[in-house]
Amino acid sequence: MIEIRPVSGIGEVEAGDDLGFILAQAIGPLSPETNDLVVVTQKIVSKAEGRMVALDTVTPGEKAIEVAAAVKKDPRLVELALAESSEIVRARPHVLITRHKSGLVMANAGIDCSNIGPGHADCALLLPVDPDRSAARLQAALEEHLRVRLGIIISDSFGRPWRNGVVNVAIGAAGIPSLHDKRGMTDRDGRILQVTQIAYGDLIASAAGLAMGEGAEGIPAVLVRGCVLPQEEIPAASLVRSLDEDLFR
Amino acid sequence: MIEIRPVSGIGEVEAGDDLGFILAQAIGPLSPETNDLVVVTQKIVSKAEGRMVALDTVTPGEKAIEVAAAVKKDPRLVELALAESSEIVRARPHVLITRHKSGLVMANAGIDCSNIGPGHADCALLLPVDPDRSAARLQAALEEHLRVRLGIIISDSFGRPWRNGVVNVAIGAAGIPSLHDKRGMTDRDGRILQVTQIAYGDLIASAAGLAMGEGAEGIPAVLVRGCVLPQEEIPAASLVRSLDEDLFR
Repeated sequence: MIEIRPVSGIGEVEAGDDLGFILAQAIGPLSPETNDLVVVTQKIVSKAEGRMVALDTVTPGEKAIEVAAAVKKDPRLVELALAESSEIVRARPHVLITRHKSGLVMANAGIDCSNIGPGHADCALLLPVDPDRSAARLQAALEEHLRVRLGIIISDSFGRPWRNGVVNVAIGAAGIPSLHDKRGMTDRDGRILQVTQIAYGDLIASAAGLAMGEGAEGIPAVLVRGCVLPQEEIPAASLVRSLDEDLFR
Repeated sequence: MIEIRPVSGIGEVEAGDDLGFILAQAIGPLSPETNDLVVVTQKIVSKAEGRMVALDTVTPGEKAIEVAAAVKKDPRLVELALAESSEIVRARPHVLITRHKSGLVMANAGIDCSNIGPGHADCALLLPVDPDRSAARLQAALEEHLRVRLGIIISDSFGRPWRNGVVNVAIGAAGIPSLHDKRGMTDRDGRILQVTQIAYGDLIASAAGLAMGEGAEGIPAVLVRGCVLPQEEIPAASLVRSLDEDLFR
């Protein structure tokens, strides 16, 4: 049986906060065990890492002003999104999908303006600079404080091209097989499997999303117990399809 | 806390089997409660509904032969995929992505050749004709046999354009809010939420996927308990983005 428990007691996280310590304090009462997984939202990681930007400090350039007019968004937000991105994938009124420098293809380069905390009314929250590294740091901090090695996932909610609604995916991970390759394995009848790679990182992030909610009831961290996963460590960066395999630019 | 339990004891399912009865027998020992969710794989639903096709009964047409040469796939499989689809979205060597008549955009129109059971070596398994209706029928059958009204999801594994690996999504559902619209709701700080629709059906399918596995250890059904969901019934068809909102044809 797999169990998904919300982690309560995490207050507002601010720049410079020791997120590893805060998480350890909150997770401790759940008596975490080896192979348990902790899923944390991108938001609290970004906040702790000081990725909040006050919009009145942003001066949009020519390109951002032009794109902002086309997509009907705040030019300062668009400036930030373009600065975080390597290319625009789609720009339509109210839609700006870019390829983040990390390779992640997502709306507004993953920049967030909701639920970023009181006192940040006119702010934007950027993605962590290197979410896999952030996850590894959290894993080390939790191991130091709790004396147990946990799998870590940093999750964010993504839209999808052909499906409505958002789902949670893994943008950072440590200690888990974010992507598991079954190439060459056979099915129960001895046939080579057609489905060759399982996106475990995203499955776990989505499972955790069920216990997180959005908006007023937001829970920024979840403990997952009982997942039987292949014993390998594959970073979330492996979930990003490479440019040369992208049929949908 | 959310609990995800594999449902054991479901043997090979064949055309004409009473899947509702089989599921009820297997789920009964888990003492299902109101608001529990049952996630079943598309494969066993398709099998019970007789959607297995022997490839030697398929005569590929001119178009299928032409596409099969381009994508390097069995022309009989391509014939079936095209017959199930309204358009080809991408065709490349070893890749055939189509829009299924239901609107689902997926590889090979969702046709499966692995894990379709012994004695079906040269067969293909098509999607259920109307997965939301299949889910509603299963819900009714389980209520009849178990005297409890459960949410039902029929799941399948899908690839994604910009991410490696497959995840489980909901292609059919009954008694759950497959898609939940939060438009106009505010976040904890009173700002209008940017993320306005949550794909609960897909989140639940992915969570269940963690307990299903692929290949030899395949588990075709899972019971999910403890999900707090909005009290509304939205079919999985609502998860399919409409053609006029598709930016990635």
